[in-house]
Amino acid sequence: MKDSQLLLSIAVLGGTGKEGKGLAFRWARAGYHVFIGSRAEEKAIATANELREMLGDDGASIIGMDNLRAAREANFVVISVPYSAHRDTLETVKSELQGKILIDVTVPLVPPKVATVQMPAAGSAAQEAREIVGEGVQVCAAFQNISYEHLLDDADVECDVLVTGTSKDSRAETIKLVEAAGLKGWDAGPIENSVVVEGLTSVLIGINKKYGSTHAGIKITGANNVLNS
Amino acid sequence: MKDSQLLLSIAVLGGTGKEGKGLAFRWARAGYHVFIGSRAEEKAIATANELREMLGDDGASIIGMDNLRAAREANFVVISVPYSAHRDTLETVKSELQGKILIDVTVPLVPPKVATVQMPAAGSAAQEAREIVGEGVQVCAAFQNISYEHLLDDADVECDVLVTGTSKDSRAETIKLVEAAGLKGWDAGPIENSVVVEGLTSVLIGINKKYGSTHAGIKITGANNVLNS
Repeated sequence: MKDSQLLLSIAVLGGTGKEGKGLAFRWARAGYHVFIGSRAEEKAIATANELREMLGDDGASIIGMDNLRAAREANFVVISVPYSAHRDTLETVKSELQGKILIDVTVPLVPPKVATVQMPAAGSAAQEAREIVGEGVQVCAAFQNISYEHLLDDADVECDVLVTGTSKDSRAETIKLVEAAGLKGWDAGPIENSVVVEGLTSVLIGINKKYGSTHAGIKITGANNVLNS
Repeated sequence: MKDSQLLLSIAVLGGTGKEGKGLAFRWARAGYHVFIGSRAEEKAIATANELREMLGDDGASIIGMDNLRAAREANFVVISVPYSAHRDTLETVKSELQGKILIDVTVPLVPPKVATVQMPAAGSAAQEAREIVGEGVQVCAAFQNISYEHLLDDADVECDVLVTGTSKDSRAETIKLVEAAGLKGWDAGPIENSVVVEGLTSVLIGINKKYGSTHAGIKITGANNVLNS
């Protein structure tokens, strides 16, 4: 565990879902305190127990709690819920997010046409989140293009993470969490660019369908992800 | 020259610009008849002469003409103009496009914030093109993420081409032209997905600025670009 991480904690709202659970696993392993959040506290506790068992000593700092408390306790709050629960979850925890960084993992898929980009009126789920939680919260979008299957094992994930967000600093903080999860992150610009990152998931779902793949992803080429100061 | 290409011709409207010229160069080299289009016929003729000189024997089939005639003569029509000239150019050639495939290379950048995604009301430049030219034209979007600098030489372009479009068939035809230009193409789904492909250009411009690169691009990972039948 690095010194700088000693006090850092991450809440994963919807952490009982496949992607949230995988991210929680990787962050706990990297030395962060992780609070699994769920609408139902008992489900969160069950997932936390399961992850602790998988992680052994590394899992000591995973705790399950309801979404509201998880948001309250943590420095960073990640929301990883189905789009249908996105607004309600944010309304519930909004008061606990002020002054923090919210990382939105949500993809606004509209079944049955999940391979067609269909954004909410705000422009993207992340922009909608910003409208709900207000200007006191820095909102970033990240992890939308990652297949959850490989998060729970030690496999290299052959997909980069594009990070958009309401400020350069919050994007830089989020990129640190991307790297802590063992992935490569890129500053993909302002929150208005979230439509690209979220929409890319529909493009990748379509590619999986058309080309018979299961884990299509993207890599940025021609650049080296060391930020200019 | 392959037999199947004997009768195929491509108009490049705005073919005197850097990207259009590079694409024209590569298609002529692959054996297609290429009509360079411009608002000013004499500029088109000058560019055609220049490319013929670069290509030697391979360049015999490059002809310069005004945009309207280029659109009339060709089987495929590519529009590669600055976004500010997009609507006017399409209005001019609209009557000549009916029954054909229009490939839109335009990125709707809005200076000075070119690293911020800012789409037109139609959703993307390609969807706007479809509104202008009507349902008698199949519209595809492609090549938005390619740096033009490497098109005019023999360098490998380390960037895939995502192809969106109004029909599966038109996307498949466009992917053939992508491959003829020496690039790797992917079916990226319906025309509604063009916002991702066009918007990605702003993300890549931002990455070049932030990471000190000049040719950031993307590659699809985890899939093999052989279409399921």
